[in-house]
Amino acid sequence: MPSVDLAKRAYDHSWRLDPIVRSLLDTDFYKLLMLQLIWRRFRDVPVTFSVINRSTSVKLAAEIDEAELRAQLDHARTLRFTNRELIWLGGNTFYGVKQIFTPDFLAWLSTYQLPEYELARTEDGQYRLTFSGSWADVTLWEIPALSIINELRARGALARLGRFELDILYSRAKTKLWEKIERLRKLENLSISDFGTRRRHGFLWQGWCVEAMKAGLGDAFIGTSNVLLAMNNDMEAVGTNGHELPMVVAALAGDDDNALRDAPYRVLEEWRQTYHGNLLVVLPDAFGTEAFLADAPSWLAEWKGFRPDSAPPIEGGEIIMDWWKSKGVDPKDKLLVLADGLDVDTIETAHAHFKGRVRTSFGWGTNLTNDFRDCAPVETPELSPISLVCKVTQAAGRPVVKLSDNRAKATGDAAEIERYQRVFGEAGRDRREVRV
Amino acid sequence: MPSVDLAKRAYDHSWRLDPIVRSLLDTDFYKLLMLQLIWRRFRDVPVTFSVINRSTSVKLAAEIDEAELRAQLDHARTLRFTNRELIWLGGNTFYGVKQIFTPDFLAWLSTYQLPEYELARTEDGQYRLTFSGSWADVTLWEIPALSIINELRARGALARLGRFELDILYSRAKTKLWEKIERLRKLENLSISDFGTRRRHGFLWQGWCVEAMKAGLGDAFIGTSNVLLAMNNDMEAVGTNGHELPMVVAALAGDDDNALRDAPYRVLEEWRQTYHGNLLVVLPDAFGTEAFLADAPSWLAEWKGFRPDSAPPIEGGEIIMDWWKSKGVDPKDKLLVLADGLDVDTIETAHAHFKGRVRTSFGWGTNLTNDFRDCAPVETPELSPISLVCKVTQAAGRPVVKLSDNRAKATGDAAEIERYQRVFGEAGRDRREVRV
Repeated sequence: MPSVDLAKRAYDHSWRLDPIVRSLLDTDFYKLLMLQLIWRRFRDVPVTFSVINRSTSVKLAAEIDEAELRAQLDHARTLRFTNRELIWLGGNTFYGVKQIFTPDFLAWLSTYQLPEYELARTEDGQYRLTFSGSWADVTLWEIPALSIINELRARGALARLGRFELDILYSRAKTKLWEKIERLRKLENLSISDFGTRRRHGFLWQGWCVEAMKAGLGDAFIGTSNVLLAMNNDMEAVGTNGHELPMVVAALAGDDDNALRDAPYRVLEEWRQTYHGNLLVVLPDAFGTEAFLADAPSWLAEWKGFRPDSAPPIEGGEIIMDWWKSKGVDPKDKLLVLADGLDVDTIETAHAHFKGRVRTSFGWGTNLTNDFRDCAPVETPELSPISLVCKVTQAAGRPVVKLSDNRAKATGDAAEIERYQRVFGEAGRDRREVRV
Repeated sequence: MPSVDLAKRAYDHSWRLDPIVRSLLDTDFYKLLMLQLIWRRFRDVPVTFSVINRSTSVKLAAEIDEAELRAQLDHARTLRFTNRELIWLGGNTFYGVKQIFTPDFLAWLSTYQLPEYELARTEDGQYRLTFSGSWADVTLWEIPALSIINELRARGALARLGRFELDILYSRAKTKLWEKIERLRKLENLSISDFGTRRRHGFLWQGWCVEAMKAGLGDAFIGTSNVLLAMNNDMEAVGTNGHELPMVVAALAGDDDNALRDAPYRVLEEWRQTYHGNLLVVLPDAFGTEAFLADAPSWLAEWKGFRPDSAPPIEGGEIIMDWWKSKGVDPKDKLLVLADGLDVDTIETAHAHFKGRVRTSFGWGTNLTNDFRDCAPVETPELSPISLVCKVTQAAGRPVVKLSDNRAKATGDAAEIERYQRVFGEAGRDRREVRV
C-alpha cells in the first residue's frame, strides 16, 4: 500500500481555486423564505445591496487580494441550484409545514444565478462591493458575499501558519467550543440554533461546529440557519425574515410619511399571507422597537413570537413581554428568539432570566462559528471577526434606511435617517458597541 | 476526483493487525547502549525479565484480550533491524561521538530477533509475561512489552468512543500539551528531552508529542529517548544506562557481600571502558543513593553527571551536589538529569531551585506522552497511565533485587531484599507514592 496517494496529491497541487461557496444552498434559510415573498410580490423593484465593513480599522483591501476576491465571486456566479437541492427544498417539511416553496417559485430558482457585481477599491483601504438589479435577483448575494470576504480574510492568516501551528489552532478552537457546549448542556429546556453563516471562519469549520452542537446538545440543538448544512446533516433549516423587507417596503412608500409609518406592518401582512404557523416571528427593530410596538396592530399578538435583534436581550425581551401582556396575551405561550451578539455568558444569563416566564430560543452566531480568540500560537489579527454586513442601500431609486435599536447600527442617507427618526420617534434607541 | 479513496478504504478494513511496535528501533536508546556492553561482557548470563503491574487495582487480564496481546507480541518477534536502521546506528554521531556502536556489534544486531515469551493469566486478574534466555537476547523485550500493553489498554478505551468523542479527546490532549510547552518555553536555558516511550499512550501520539516539543521549544528540546523517533525526526537519541546493569551484576556477586557492595561501581567501571564523554552519567539509586555515595570512588566525580531516579528531584539533587562539593568539584560544571515522575510544575520548581548552581536536564516521561486526564468526553479509566515495569527478576539462577530510594519501588525476593538492605544500609530510603 503506498503511503502517498499520488492521484490525490497531484490533484491537491493543481487546484485552480478552493471554492469558498460550494452551493447556492450555502446561505441562510431566511433569504430563501424572503426571496419567495419578494419574487411573488416585489420581484422587479430595482435595488442595490452594498457590503459595509463597520470595523473600519481593518483595511480589507490590504488584507484580501483583489484577484482572489474576484475569482471567488466569479465562482459563486457559476453555481446553480442542483436538482437534488430543488427536490429537497420542494419535498422537505420546514417548521412542520410541507411544500413551503411553491412549484412555480422552485421552477424559477432552477434557472437562477447570482447576478453581476461591482468591485472597486476605496481611498480608505476598503472594497466597494455592490450588487444592483431586480430585488429577486440581487438579494441572494448577501450571504455568499459575506462568507467569501470573511473566509478570504481568515485564509490570509492561515497561510502564514506552519503545519503545526495550524494543528494547535484547530485543536484549541475545538476544545474551546466543546467547553462552551458542555456549559450549554447544563441549561434545562435549552433551544438553540446555529446562526453563524455570515460571520463564520470558513465553511468547513462551520460544518464542524454544527456537528459538534448536534453531538453535544442533542435535541436542544434545533437546527442551523445554513440550508446546505441543514440538508447535509438532515437537520432543520431555521430562520424567518430579516430587515431588508421593511427597509425596502419603507423606501417604496416614497415621500408619504403615513405609508412609511405603515410599512413595517404592511410587510408583516404580506408575510402572513405567504407563511403561517412557526414562521410567524416578528422582527420589530428595523426602525426602533418602541415605535413599532406603539402602533402595532393587535393581530401581531397572535404570532408565534418576536426576534428582538439589536436591543440587549433582557431589556429587549422585557419590552416585548410587556406588550404581549398589554394585549392580554400570556408570554408563557410565546417565543423570544434571541440572536444578537450572543456567547455562552449571555445565553446563560438570558436563559435564567426568562426561565418559566416566556419560551426562548437562541440563534448563536459569530461566537459559535468564528471564535478563534487566543487559539493561534502567533498573532493573527485577521482571525478576529469583523462587523461586516451586506445591506440593501437603494430601492426604487431612493436611499434605504435602517434605524435599529442601536444607533451604531443605523445605516442610510443622513437626510432620510432624519426623516425616519421624525416619523418613528426616538424612543428606546441607544448607542452601544456593535458586537460582531 | 472521487471523494473516497476506494483502495485505501478497502485496505483499512482488511487489516489483520495494526502493529503497535513497528521497528526494533522503537525502543529507548539506553537499551541499545546497555545491550552493547551486555553483549560484549555478559552476553550469556541467563536472565528472566518480568512485566510487573504495580497498579494492582487495574486488572490487565480483564482489560486486554489475550489473543490481541499474543498477536502484538508475535508481530514484534517478526521484526528485524533493517539495513537503513543499522547504517544510521553505525554512521550517526551520538553525544558528539562517532561510531559509538562497533561493527561487530552491529553485525550481531543485524541477525537479532526478540526471543520467545511466556504468557499466562494469574488468579488476581493480571498477566504473567516473562522473557527468559541469555541477557543479550532478552533485554530488548523491556520496551516493546511495555509499549504493547500500554497501547492495547488505551485502544480498548478508544474503541468505545465515537468519531466525535475521539476528535475532542485528541484536540484536548493537544491543547493541554501545547499549554505545557508554552509554560516550559519561559524557562531560561531549559534542557529537556522525551523519556516517555515506556508509558506512552501510543506510538503515533508519542510522535506527535515529539514534533510538538520540537516545534514549540526549539533547541531547548534536546532529543528523545526513542531511537526510531530520533532517526525519523533527525534528532538526538538520548539516554545512558539503567538499573538492570547494577542489578544483574549484583546478582552475579553470588553470596559474597563484598562483591555485592562493589557491584554498582564495577558496572560503572565497565561502562567507562565502553563509553566516555557525555555518556558518563551515573544512575546511583539501584540500592539507595546514600549508600552508593558513601562508598563511591573519587573518579566518579569526574563523570559528566548523575541521574537521581527515585528520590524527589530537589532532595535527590542536593545530596549529589553535596557529594560533588565533598570531592572538591564545582556542581556548576556538572549535570543533574532529572527524570522521575515529572510534570510542568515539578520541572518549573526544580529548574528555579537549581538555576545557576548546577546544570540540569529534564527527561520528561509519562506526563509528556500519556496525559489524557479530563480529555475524554466520557469516563475512560483505561486512559489513565499505570505503573507498569518490565524488570530483570532472575539472573544466573539467583533472584535479582532493586532497592531504590523509594521503598515502594523495591523489587525482588524478600530474603534477598533483606540481605541487600543489610549490605547497603537503610539511609535515605523512604516510601512514597509511585508517580507513573
